[in-house]
Amino acid sequence: MARLLDQINSPADLKQIPVAELPQLAEEIRQEMITILAKNGGHLGPNLGVVELTIALHYVFQTPEDRFLFDVSHQGYVHKLLTGRRDRFPLIRQPGGLSGFLNREESAHDCYGAGHAGTALSAALGMAVGRDLRGGKENVVAVCGDAAFTCGITYEALNNVCDQTKRLIVILNDNEWSIDKNVGAIASYFSRIVSHPAYSWLRDRAEEFLKKIPNRGVLRAARKAEEAVKSLLLPSVIFEELGLTYYGPVDGHDVAMLISMFEFLKQQEHPVLFHVLTQKGKGFAPAMEKQKKFHGLGPYHPVTGETPASSALTCSQVFADTLVKLADQNRNVVAITAAMPNGTALDRFQPKFPDRYFDTGIAEEHAVLFAAGLATKGFKPYCAIYSTFLQRAYDQIVHDVCLQNLPVVFCMDRGGLSGDDGPTHHGLFDISFLRCVPNITLLHPKDEDELADMLFTAMHHPGPVAIRYPRGVGSGVAVKPFPEMIPIGRAEVLQHGRDVAIFGLGMMVPMACELAAALGAEGISAAVINPRTVKPLDRGTLEFFGRSVDAIVTIEDHVLAGGFGSLVLEALSEMGIAVPVVRVGWPDQYIEHGKVEQLRKKYGVTAEAALEKLRPIFKGRLRSADEIA
Amino acid sequence: MARLLDQINSPADLKQIPVAELPQLAEEIRQEMITILAKNGGHLGPNLGVVELTIALHYVFQTPEDRFLFDVSHQGYVHKLLTGRRDRFPLIRQPGGLSGFLNREESAHDCYGAGHAGTALSAALGMAVGRDLRGGKENVVAVCGDAAFTCGITYEALNNVCDQTKRLIVILNDNEWSIDKNVGAIASYFSRIVSHPAYSWLRDRAEEFLKKIPNRGVLRAARKAEEAVKSLLLPSVIFEELGLTYYGPVDGHDVAMLISMFEFLKQQEHPVLFHVLTQKGKGFAPAMEKQKKFHGLGPYHPVTGETPASSALTCSQVFADTLVKLADQNRNVVAITAAMPNGTALDRFQPKFPDRYFDTGIAEEHAVLFAAGLATKGFKPYCAIYSTFLQRAYDQIVHDVCLQNLPVVFCMDRGGLSGDDGPTHHGLFDISFLRCVPNITLLHPKDEDELADMLFTAMHHPGPVAIRYPRGVGSGVAVKPFPEMIPIGRAEVLQHGRDVAIFGLGMMVPMACELAAALGAEGISAAVINPRTVKPLDRGTLEFFGRSVDAIVTIEDHVLAGGFGSLVLEALSEMGIAVPVVRVGWPDQYIEHGKVEQLRKKYGVTAEAALEKLRPIFKGRLRSADEIA
Repeated sequence: MARLLDQINSPADLKQIPVAELPQLAEEIRQEMITILAKNGGHLGPNLGVVELTIALHYVFQTPEDRFLFDVSHQGYVHKLLTGRRDRFPLIRQPGGLSGFLNREESAHDCYGAGHAGTALSAALGMAVGRDLRGGKENVVAVCGDAAFTCGITYEALNNVCDQTKRLIVILNDNEWSIDKNVGAIASYFSRIVSHPAYSWLRDRAEEFLKKIPNRGVLRAARKAEEAVKSLLLPSVIFEELGLTYYGPVDGHDVAMLISMFEFLKQQEHPVLFHVLTQKGKGFAPAMEKQKKFHGLGPYHPVTGETPASSALTCSQVFADTLVKLADQNRNVVAITAAMPNGTALDRFQPKFPDRYFDTGIAEEHAVLFAAGLATKGFKPYCAIYSTFLQRAYDQIVHDVCLQNLPVVFCMDRGGLSGDDGPTHHGLFDISFLRCVPNITLLHPKDEDELADMLFTAMHHPGPVAIRYPRGVGSGVAVKPFPEMIPIGRAEVLQHGRDVAIFGLGMMVPMACELAAALGAEGISAAVINPRTVKPLDRGTLEFFGRSVDAIVTIEDHVLAGGFGSLVLEALSEMGIAVPVVRVGWPDQYIEHGKVEQLRKKYGVTAEAALEKLRPIFKGRLRSADEIA
Repeated sequence: MARLLDQINSPADLKQIPVAELPQLAEEIRQEMITILAKNGGHLGPNLGVVELTIALHYVFQTPEDRFLFDVSHQGYVHKLLTGRRDRFPLIRQPGGLSGFLNREESAHDCYGAGHAGTALSAALGMAVGRDLRGGKENVVAVCGDAAFTCGITYEALNNVCDQTKRLIVILNDNEWSIDKNVGAIASYFSRIVSHPAYSWLRDRAEEFLKKIPNRGVLRAARKAEEAVKSLLLPSVIFEELGLTYYGPVDGHDVAMLISMFEFLKQQEHPVLFHVLTQKGKGFAPAMEKQKKFHGLGPYHPVTGETPASSALTCSQVFADTLVKLADQNRNVVAITAAMPNGTALDRFQPKFPDRYFDTGIAEEHAVLFAAGLATKGFKPYCAIYSTFLQRAYDQIVHDVCLQNLPVVFCMDRGGLSGDDGPTHHGLFDISFLRCVPNITLLHPKDEDELADMLFTAMHHPGPVAIRYPRGVGSGVAVKPFPEMIPIGRAEVLQHGRDVAIFGLGMMVPMACELAAALGAEGISAAVINPRTVKPLDRGTLEFFGRSVDAIVTIEDHVLAGGFGSLVLEALSEMGIAVPVVRVGWPDQYIEHGKVEQLRKKYGVTAEAALEKLRPIFKGRLRSADEIA
């Protein structure tokens, strides 16, 4: 049988399908996603949960005139399938293929990109106000997961909605999860609404009523319907007090009912919050059983959901296992995550020290302030936040932790290029934005064992520390049974050399060694240095090499602007040393998603590129690429 | 008559005063503040509002064991007067004197410093959890203004409270103002509680009841009292749904009643929110009449409240007046402030274009996202946020505005040293944290007229722009009737010279000229350049001078780490130019409060300091300081 999905090249095609056949389309979309993501990996669970919701949105509204914003937008795959990107879907998250998130450059139907949570409602309000100023009639719909309601920005937006527009549709897509199970008072509040004894009774009546609403076109009996709907559904005092009319909760997998509701909601002349209950992973048994695993993952078996076993520990896992060792020795060690127990691997810490483990929800600002508060009581908080998300807590780092010189340890996971997730998830700016902050110590280990040593060293350091480490497995070295102290502010000379000094920051040490070997093969003697401490920089070691070699090379998995190489230039300038410096790192542009190795090659973050830059300096001594060929 | 205040050298002394005499003490404290701030300036209004509240807190609780956190902490003057700092109070906000904010280094009674809003509740929760982990009994009290409830962090904290502790006292100090009148749904919500018809009736009964509670010592009839209090006061569904027990609203100037309530609240074994109504400026007629003006101000007349008239326009005022001109011409120009209409001078824009003016509350993250949403609809949002507060929206700048390349204009007021407010308000990091962000254009005018030109130029620029300008009056030049375009990426050579090239960034141009004059007096020919565009840097001009002079000097009102001088070093290194560079700017430490000129001298941000650094480079040619003497 021909698939309905194959007939849909735009939302207009979708609107030709009778409502009764939409459940079949939903099934086809689920199969398409399960099959393709089995190869590519991706955010399977969230997308399986919003199939009917997205179909219903496109059935009723008209993008790109109407606007859909998806909070985080990892749940935008169905939207991509329905908006002319079906053919390219098999290449989602692949190099050169579709992004795993919405992207304004990818399609006119993607009115707003994202990758971080909690942004949709604020941006949607901006669009709604813009429409009102222009006198437009289009609809603006923000689809926010319940997790977005643990994030303060969502409240800042809610606080502004009712003063600023009369027409905004906010969909609370409630699946009870962020990546992990949601935490906090607002999650309990949502579940109290859903578990209210009146809900099941109301749900039955609502279905009956809503099915009578015409599915297409203008709803003529809007006023009467509104009264009926209001009396049918449960009130939510919080949203009502904040000035939004609350409708819900309704079954988010009943596509016909969703269509009826959207027809109704788009007639409303007041901001609405529509509470939809969905199930993450819906329609794929392994994903429904293991919601956390299937939030976002690599390739899996398309039937069993099994994933290839990984042998080596990731840096995140080494971090968490080390923290368990430290917490065993020191009762002041506490761990904090902002809704990322799995990603940061703190789910390995939590069962061992449940009282000293804190998940704040998607609330990085609060997480850092909470850590600061704990630090004033003599605790040693290890705050594990991805580099890209730590941008959220920048003011708290500057104003609360470092100004007060409190001993909080920032465990900056995903420092460097993150690969498949793309520019919203790369951690390429942190050295620039942290090294200008007084009082902070900034460490970057060359491998997992040194990461453990740095975590231990930070425990004994009386001020704030940030430790940067990359996504995934590092060099794969064995980790000592118990970590040792490293000297803060002292670089490690891994290999001596007299012509060039190569500073390979963190896990770029292997690339530094590769470059040294290539230089060695051409008769140039190269030293390899592991800086270890970005701040304070080991100026003694830098001065020694700066005054003795003909060139310095810095290699960093970070933008060049303001990064480690820039710091080296500052120090050399202050010491009055005029040695040439070749800086290797990422250029001043956003880097797309792709495989790390391919992107490094494309952007010249390689030993070969460094070698080419050294040629003019050593022109008499190094053979040119042509000569070698 | 001897003042009661003169007997108080610690909270223990306060506790010796009978409750009946506390209103007299309150009056004395008010007079002390009004008299001293008339000379020093400071946050008069907020402190006049919390006199009774602070007295009652210290009467019932016992710092430093118990902990008080003040949100923003500009309302901590009464606390300072009662905790052993009475003698030093006349020097508040003066060089070497007390800070205008709480400061952990200043006193053991200051358990947490601040200067930015919305941090207290999160930090207090950290302290409460730390206490619980240690099995302690001390009390943690967070005093938050109603303005803090427009800030998302406060909600992130509220969302976490009930899961994490049973003992936390949150005081909602409701005066209906942040600096300006509060905005948004939560402000309306608070006023609905207060204007509830039951309130006045309840207030009378509550007073009668509460006065029967013993003022000192353990409250024996706690359970019974609790029931009575609950039935007396109004419920707040929002706070109750979030898991805090709500008590209030009560008159925040009735010190006896506050004492009774605190005796009661400290017995509670659940987190409480206590809603207190206070009046900003209470007791000083000019401050009650002009709440905005007296939030924070310079010297004033101690009786009439009159302030010296200022003739020259501040940079903020030039910004706002220019924006009015642009908005007159271009209907897409909109203005956004995060609760700072007066500080940013947008209160000059608002009356002219009320529909195109938006105050988001203390919600910088939302403000930037809201701007991004408007930009997607073709608007040109000018988002005026102080440099130090823009740290709050860093992720939104990186992830939402610049990644999507949306034409939002960040008007970065208070870029550079802010002076009397101290380290929480200096804007010294913005170049470092912004110049690493792709797609942004970063401008810095040399005077007010160029500021106007840059605002106009930004209107025509298709991507994100940040314009940095300092607090207060700039060079005082006349501003053209209508601004003109400046070429982005082109520096302005103000004076030619062959030996030294001095790049004076922004309003450091006069210092650059001063240095050039000093060099000229010693026979060294110096060029003076106004870089205008930090990003993209004018590499052509830099290369020209880099290849022709013997030294380059950069002068910036910014930290040296990663700042403008660092950018110059990067560019010179990339161009293979080895000229010595002398960088003048702020060192890698937090700079205390004080007069700008004094602090510049202390930290070597002066033409003299630059001259000394140049001496070794021109040693044969420049006379040494000794020789000149």
